[in-house]
Amino acid sequence: MPRWKKINMKFIIRFVGLLLIFEGFFMLTGLGFSIYYNNDIYPLLISGLITSCFGLFLWLINKNYKNKDIGKREGYITVSLTWIVMSLFGTLPFLLSKTIPNFTNAFFETISGFTTTGASILNDIEAIPRDILFWRSMTHWIGGMGIIVLSIAVLPILGIGGMQLFAAEVPGPTKDKLHPRIRETAKRLWGIYILLTFIETLLLMYGGMDFFNAICHAFGTMATGGFSTQNASIANYSPFIQYIIIVFMILAGTNFTLHYFMLRGKLNRIWKNEEFRYYIFLILISSIIITVCLFLFNNTSVEKSFRSSLFQAVSIITTTGYVTANYLSWPVFLWVFLFLLMFTGGCAGSTGGGVKIVRILLLFKNSSLELKRLIHPSAVIPVRLNKKIIPQNIIFNILAFFLIYMIFFAFGTFFMTILGFDFKSAMGSVAATIGNIGPAIGSVGPINNYANIPVVGKWFLSFLMLLGRLELFTVLILFSPAFWKK
Amino acid sequence: MPRWKKINMKFIIRFVGLLLIFEGFFMLTGLGFSIYYNNDIYPLLISGLITSCFGLFLWLINKNYKNKDIGKREGYITVSLTWIVMSLFGTLPFLLSKTIPNFTNAFFETISGFTTTGASILNDIEAIPRDILFWRSMTHWIGGMGIIVLSIAVLPILGIGGMQLFAAEVPGPTKDKLHPRIRETAKRLWGIYILLTFIETLLLMYGGMDFFNAICHAFGTMATGGFSTQNASIANYSPFIQYIIIVFMILAGTNFTLHYFMLRGKLNRIWKNEEFRYYIFLILISSIIITVCLFLFNNTSVEKSFRSSLFQAVSIITTTGYVTANYLSWPVFLWVFLFLLMFTGGCAGSTGGGVKIVRILLLFKNSSLELKRLIHPSAVIPVRLNKKIIPQNIIFNILAFFLIYMIFFAFGTFFMTILGFDFKSAMGSVAATIGNIGPAIGSVGPINNYANIPVVGKWFLSFLMLLGRLELFTVLILFSPAFWKK
Repeated sequence: MPRWKKINMKFIIRFVGLLLIFEGFFMLTGLGFSIYYNNDIYPLLISGLITSCFGLFLWLINKNYKNKDIGKREGYITVSLTWIVMSLFGTLPFLLSKTIPNFTNAFFETISGFTTTGASILNDIEAIPRDILFWRSMTHWIGGMGIIVLSIAVLPILGIGGMQLFAAEVPGPTKDKLHPRIRETAKRLWGIYILLTFIETLLLMYGGMDFFNAICHAFGTMATGGFSTQNASIANYSPFIQYIIIVFMILAGTNFTLHYFMLRGKLNRIWKNEEFRYYIFLILISSIIITVCLFLFNNTSVEKSFRSSLFQAVSIITTTGYVTANYLSWPVFLWVFLFLLMFTGGCAGSTGGGVKIVRILLLFKNSSLELKRLIHPSAVIPVRLNKKIIPQNIIFNILAFFLIYMIFFAFGTFFMTILGFDFKSAMGSVAATIGNIGPAIGSVGPINNYANIPVVGKWFLSFLMLLGRLELFTVLILFSPAFWKK
Repeated sequence: MPRWKKINMKFIIRFVGLLLIFEGFFMLTGLGFSIYYNNDIYPLLISGLITSCFGLFLWLINKNYKNKDIGKREGYITVSLTWIVMSLFGTLPFLLSKTIPNFTNAFFETISGFTTTGASILNDIEAIPRDILFWRSMTHWIGGMGIIVLSIAVLPILGIGGMQLFAAEVPGPTKDKLHPRIRETAKRLWGIYILLTFIETLLLMYGGMDFFNAICHAFGTMATGGFSTQNASIANYSPFIQYIIIVFMILAGTNFTLHYFMLRGKLNRIWKNEEFRYYIFLILISSIIITVCLFLFNNTSVEKSFRSSLFQAVSIITTTGYVTANYLSWPVFLWVFLFLLMFTGGCAGSTGGGVKIVRILLLFKNSSLELKRLIHPSAVIPVRLNKKIIPQNIIFNILAFFLIYMIFFAFGTFFMTILGFDFKSAMGSVAATIGNIGPAIGSVGPINNYANIPVVGKWFLSFLMLLGRLELFTVLILFSPAFWKK
């Protein structure tokens, strides 16, 4: 009989407790809007108090945990547990306000928020009280905060899917200890995140939005989330606002260490970053292709074609999911093109989801090098990124990541068709949830939502959102028996 | 300026010439049917003579080639060129008999034959003279002969996509020299191929088919091709005949070295072969799933459900493409399941196309081991097959193979939607041609054909058939500048 590995549960529970305290506090910030808009203050107030108090309770009863026992295992468990527990408590405002009385729906909406997916089950967003909508958008923003720290500080230490490549970029004070490194990185990058959110809010207000809509959309943009306060998403806003959101979606989909370098004036390091160059290149080439086709086939004006194309391409590449046009009404090959873009994702170390540009780039490089390896079988031909050799084990990990992503996409599609979905909608719903995008194709397209999916399907898609957001391995490793054995 | 590598073109042309002599001879074998069925003998006669004479001409004028200059480069060029040139000459019977007067259509049908795909542009197969149908089925059989030698003797030497794994299985007299090894392997395996074709023909005749239909269907089965002589494919034949074809499809999708072992009485080596075990397991589990669902949802009888399920699963896994049921009329999730099976393919070293079971198996193994590698980062955890460690470079090559396959699938789908295909048909046509299956989903489903595709699409799909059949790299390497440089 294998012995089970002892897990430092005290630390894990205490940490989750701490985060719940903060979550409750974040809920309470919405009370300003409750009062200003004459909404019922109790749902947010009670949710915030329950969450914070429960968090405080967990935090206090696990005071005497042993710091030195914290290893990678604890890291893995904490990460998955954090997103699940925060999503569970995050449902409270929806449930208590009865805006989403059904628990499955409330959980779907909340985890869609925290994973910065933006897939919604709400049919009439504008009918929801504004303080609840604020909480809905805030789940994005909190999720985005978590993802930045996770992808730049935590996952590299855990060794997930090539994230090591970015670990060296913002070196913390100590490389070995999890705690101080995360704290230091968080301090630097959250500053940038908050600053960018602040600037976007101001610019959106300058463009004519009121403070409420401005901050909600800024939350949705910077987290590459996609929840809007409007049923028509961004479609009815002015071109100025649309361009502002485009710019900030691009910034949110960029590796946040690059923003850090920019603030430090190290501009040359930004352009030297191959992933960033390909990210910008992909955005440009996709927008140009779509613009030309829209102009030719749909007879739209050049500016409007360009704006819709750029908006939709950026929204999908960065996995935000805001919408200004019903792209399903475009010629088939254009939405098929957008569907393919759902598999690229933003840059690693951004708030964007999906496979990530750097992985796609390394996969392409490795495949083309394989031809060279066939021609020169005895030569060692390594893959390079930013002129540095990428170790084989990282390439291996990335290839496994891509394969697992595709396996879930394929079997997820099959599973959704069992639930009665048509082929297109099944593919769309899976690609858009595991990629943390939101709107997809078919019956879960840009002008539809996820309301009519059977309960089992909603839980399955919730799982996919978590899986995609936490870079697959973080979640899957918990299902591996070897993980729990001594 | 890079110097161009000198290619031993004399050898290549002489070799292609030799194959054309044989191709012409094979055409002439159909004259028996021309006479027996009172068909016009001239199309086959003239085609055969032109092909053989042209081949003889190429063979004779390149007599003094230098044997020692033959390397891998010559191997790569010969392989691709062989399939293309043989397909070009293979159009002659269709063109001269005016059964397929259009060159694009004739080339599509012929390369579909030689690549053992079985995608057809013929609307009314039964209206075609029987001697021409015999040639059509024979292209499968010749293609299958080529593939066995290619995959077991040639590609391992060229180092393509894990094919090295099977190189050791039937050791030739000398490992280094291309020529004697290929000849030895061909002698052994073609014997088995011819024997199985002969037995299947007899059994089909015992089941009630006349000699013509029996041999044509045996050709289509053993090559995992899929061309039938009937518009309804295998649907109108008796259960006995359907079961016979199922058994021989399974045999054709098995690594031919295993047949060799079986004939030598080494039965333990067969069951020790992991790929074979998973191949049988995949067939069983798929058939059972489909049987149960068909029985529950379509109210078909158990025997008929089982027979349709087994037939369709085997036909698609082995990439044959024979049809006994219009699976598109089944519940959506069942044909989505069949669509997923289009990506598995038969065993390596069989006449089956697709990704191949062994590659899928190694990819799955590597992905699940990646979780173990994350848990024990310092341990070296290799992938094993048949209890032997698989070298990392082979895993790399297989991963690159899969990725390139998926890239062509994704961009191919996009390209087909540009040509006006709907999403489903675009995906189906690409998956079924690059996987050498034949019938797909959507407008190229089991009761439709490839007739209504625009000319550009037909050439593109022809390219995909060649690409898939020759294991991607063999063709793609010719597009790599490094291949041609000294």
